[in-house]
Amino acid sequence: MENYINIYKETRKKIKAYGYMMWLMSWDRETEAPKASLAYSSKQFGVIQEELYKIESDPKFVEAIEKLYENLNELDDQDFKVEIKHAYKELRMIKKVPKDEYLAYGKLIQKGSHIWAEAKENNDFEAYRPTLEEIVAFNQKLVKYLETDELKGYDVLLDMYEEGFGVKEYDLFFNTVKEELAPFVLEVTSHKDRFSRKLTKGIFPIAGQKEFGNYLMEVFNYDQTKGVLKESAHPFTSGTSSVDTRITTHYHEDNLLSSVFSTIHEMGHAIYELQCDEKYDDTMLHGGTSLGIHESESRMFENMIGRSYAFWKVHYPKLLEIFPKQLKNITLEEFYKFMNRAERSLIRIEADELTYSLHVLVRYEIEKQLISGKLKVKDLPKRWNSLMSKYVGKRPKTDKEGVLQDIHWSGGSFGYFPTYALGSAYAAQIYQAMNKDINVEEVVLNNDIKQINAWLKEHVHKFGQSKTPKEILQIATHEDFDPSYYVDYLKRKFS
Amino acid sequence: MENYINIYKETRKKIKAYGYMMWLMSWDRETEAPKASLAYSSKQFGVIQEELYKIESDPKFVEAIEKLYENLNELDDQDFKVEIKHAYKELRMIKKVPKDEYLAYGKLIQKGSHIWAEAKENNDFEAYRPTLEEIVAFNQKLVKYLETDELKGYDVLLDMYEEGFGVKEYDLFFNTVKEELAPFVLEVTSHKDRFSRKLTKGIFPIAGQKEFGNYLMEVFNYDQTKGVLKESAHPFTSGTSSVDTRITTHYHEDNLLSSVFSTIHEMGHAIYELQCDEKYDDTMLHGGTSLGIHESESRMFENMIGRSYAFWKVHYPKLLEIFPKQLKNITLEEFYKFMNRAERSLIRIEADELTYSLHVLVRYEIEKQLISGKLKVKDLPKRWNSLMSKYVGKRPKTDKEGVLQDIHWSGGSFGYFPTYALGSAYAAQIYQAMNKDINVEEVVLNNDIKQINAWLKEHVHKFGQSKTPKEILQIATHEDFDPSYYVDYLKRKFS
Repeated sequence: MENYINIYKETRKKIKAYGYMMWLMSWDRETEAPKASLAYSSKQFGVIQEELYKIESDPKFVEAIEKLYENLNELDDQDFKVEIKHAYKELRMIKKVPKDEYLAYGKLIQKGSHIWAEAKENNDFEAYRPTLEEIVAFNQKLVKYLETDELKGYDVLLDMYEEGFGVKEYDLFFNTVKEELAPFVLEVTSHKDRFSRKLTKGIFPIAGQKEFGNYLMEVFNYDQTKGVLKESAHPFTSGTSSVDTRITTHYHEDNLLSSVFSTIHEMGHAIYELQCDEKYDDTMLHGGTSLGIHESESRMFENMIGRSYAFWKVHYPKLLEIFPKQLKNITLEEFYKFMNRAERSLIRIEADELTYSLHVLVRYEIEKQLISGKLKVKDLPKRWNSLMSKYVGKRPKTDKEGVLQDIHWSGGSFGYFPTYALGSAYAAQIYQAMNKDINVEEVVLNNDIKQINAWLKEHVHKFGQSKTPKEILQIATHEDFDPSYYVDYLKRKFS
Repeated sequence: MENYINIYKETRKKIKAYGYMMWLMSWDRETEAPKASLAYSSKQFGVIQEELYKIESDPKFVEAIEKLYENLNELDDQDFKVEIKHAYKELRMIKKVPKDEYLAYGKLIQKGSHIWAEAKENNDFEAYRPTLEEIVAFNQKLVKYLETDELKGYDVLLDMYEEGFGVKEYDLFFNTVKEELAPFVLEVTSHKDRFSRKLTKGIFPIAGQKEFGNYLMEVFNYDQTKGVLKESAHPFTSGTSSVDTRITTHYHEDNLLSSVFSTIHEMGHAIYELQCDEKYDDTMLHGGTSLGIHESESRMFENMIGRSYAFWKVHYPKLLEIFPKQLKNITLEEFYKFMNRAERSLIRIEADELTYSLHVLVRYEIEKQLISGKLKVKDLPKRWNSLMSKYVGKRPKTDKEGVLQDIHWSGGSFGYFPTYALGSAYAAQIYQAMNKDINVEEVVLNNDIKQINAWLKEHVHKFGQSKTPKEILQIATHEDFDPSYYVDYLKRKFS
């Protein structure tokens, strides 16, 4: 066993280092690399990726994992056991998917993202269709390769992003959304605007937005010695460890709230990563345990704290100080109402808190049918439009603002979308539990958000990937997942 | 042979990719990585470095290089022949230096830089001495390992940075400096200030300096789709290919010229790298052929173009536009004279164009004696001070402004310094040749620097490492190296 442990740990060291390099390269490509260099850097990335694949599929390493897994009971270290379980699960990819298919798929999805981007630009679904068909076909095949007694069909993919959540769990959740939330949303959004649009008229110079971004980092205790705030086409969080997790935002002169809320959102992700126990930095257990739990932290920061009245009562004065002219005629109440308006809209990433999960519902139903083969790629645009019409109450006029809007499928991510909605639901449940220990509104009013961070660290963050999403929910809330917190929260807020 | 060529090329692909990753990591560490992450990233760097060492010392790769070298005549591709010659030369490190000594030394110099930085901070040579003694001892041993019939002693190290330049060549050069330049410099710098110090009184906000930096990138045609201008503690240039070479500068509010000239200097380096023939991007021949030739390009940009009257006649108005208040009482003539003042000073990197080579002379004489063992590390500070006094005419009061000022030796770089002075001398010779083909002053007055870039590309840059420094000089100037151009240029300018 000692020998297998050594092989595992030595190889892990390499995997971490290669992962680090690939992470840095992606960060650089998104934020700084000069345009003309992207093809060159992508070639280098490919070489390293192949090297990493060799390391991960080295028979000695595979054997070590298998032996350790078979003798899990002999291991004392609980965390290490979890790590081996994960590693064993990951082996499926190497053992069950033929190498050339796996590598060919890697190239397909790299190409896929470019083809999608062009098709979106040109509003031309047909140009994208053949590639998407290939990607769907591979995922159907992948599902077959990876199916087990417990996981069948779409569950295989769902489980990759959110362990323990398959069609059964998601159906329960989305049924609640469909039955309890959807009618409420359609009702709320059928009213005429009850908010002022004055904010949309202002021009907010980027230097000022950056200044407020720096202020927000202080407010949320996003530690600058462990993080960076930069710009990229789309905001994201990206990190390696409890000492380095970086975020980006995007500035629009005519949309102040966009950079404000994307910064707060990404800080929610980043603080989760930074607050994982540092003992996991050199292991495979560093980082958020699942996409859903990750999204719960970012959504809680963005929506439940960042869009609360208490928050802006404290921080609107700072914004007024930076943009005195632009905001002089906008009261705190108007500002608050505008950022919490609910509207039927077509684009998911621009959707408000209330309608958001309905956008995800559309994608969930489509993915389920695509992977099972009930829906063909060629029929996607039609189905998309009819589901949007049904759940969100608004029908896209073009594919660009319809089925072509998201990058995910072009990168082969099926099973990813549902976690977005799940995250909001987790957030409501976790917030409720936290609010029993600390008075969150008071903490926000006292500009003392580090108390919130500390609670989240203790009940969610520090565990890294050593606990499953379901276990995290139990630790943090002493309950199983319960979407009613989410529905209640939204109904209370938007009634 | 086909087989060896394939092995070589396949391995080269990996070496390039690993090199890319290590380059990116260094770039990130210097410019952006959050402070708290440096230890973590350095651990990952170490792992990758070790992997790279394995690849480079793989017996199959070594065999391929040896066989190709033995059969060089069978190779058609002239560039490939040069590459194999270089690779064969590099093999010395792997074949002649015991692996554990080599790796231990790598760790020593990594530690060395930290110890040096602290010793410098505390002006405490004694804290640094034992480490420096180890480093010197290793370099003495290294020299023994690598000596050949042609290269003995210090030559071994000098040749690493400037092929074809050993003690014989450098002695000739530095004798000219000592005999013809040093007395002239002492004479010029003995006069009272003949320039106004008004410029040192102003405060120049960094936003304005950045604006002028962007302007300079346009002026010098530093292509932003292939480059980046960023900030770091010390300015540098760093790149991978003809599509990605980045530079940094450093801004001081009370020193406008610092960022201006470091930006121009680094652009000289960067444009050299960017103008290497793109066919070398995937080979080991990309990049400047030697430190000396590299420095010739940066010095030519900085001093011969950037400090010329013609240049500021065209561009001073832009600077006045950005800093109208700060510059309103400073005439173009005063501005020009101030940037070209000559003073005895203690710090090399702050030295002016005229005195610079004397600072290097001090280091050259010391290195020669250190490596031969004639000078002991413990006697370094004394020797340093007496040589400074002799050549530069100024004696340091502390080691911080004396022997501790430069990082190079702490990183094991012996033989590096001399290339700095050589670069200026090359620059004068190349400039002179260029001036026969194009009227450089006129080109500068017409703000048409791309003509200069084009000439340099054709006569220096495009060859990458496929030519030696001596060959480049022949191509560009049709002459062997001749330091009299340098001495003449300085005497003309500073008389």
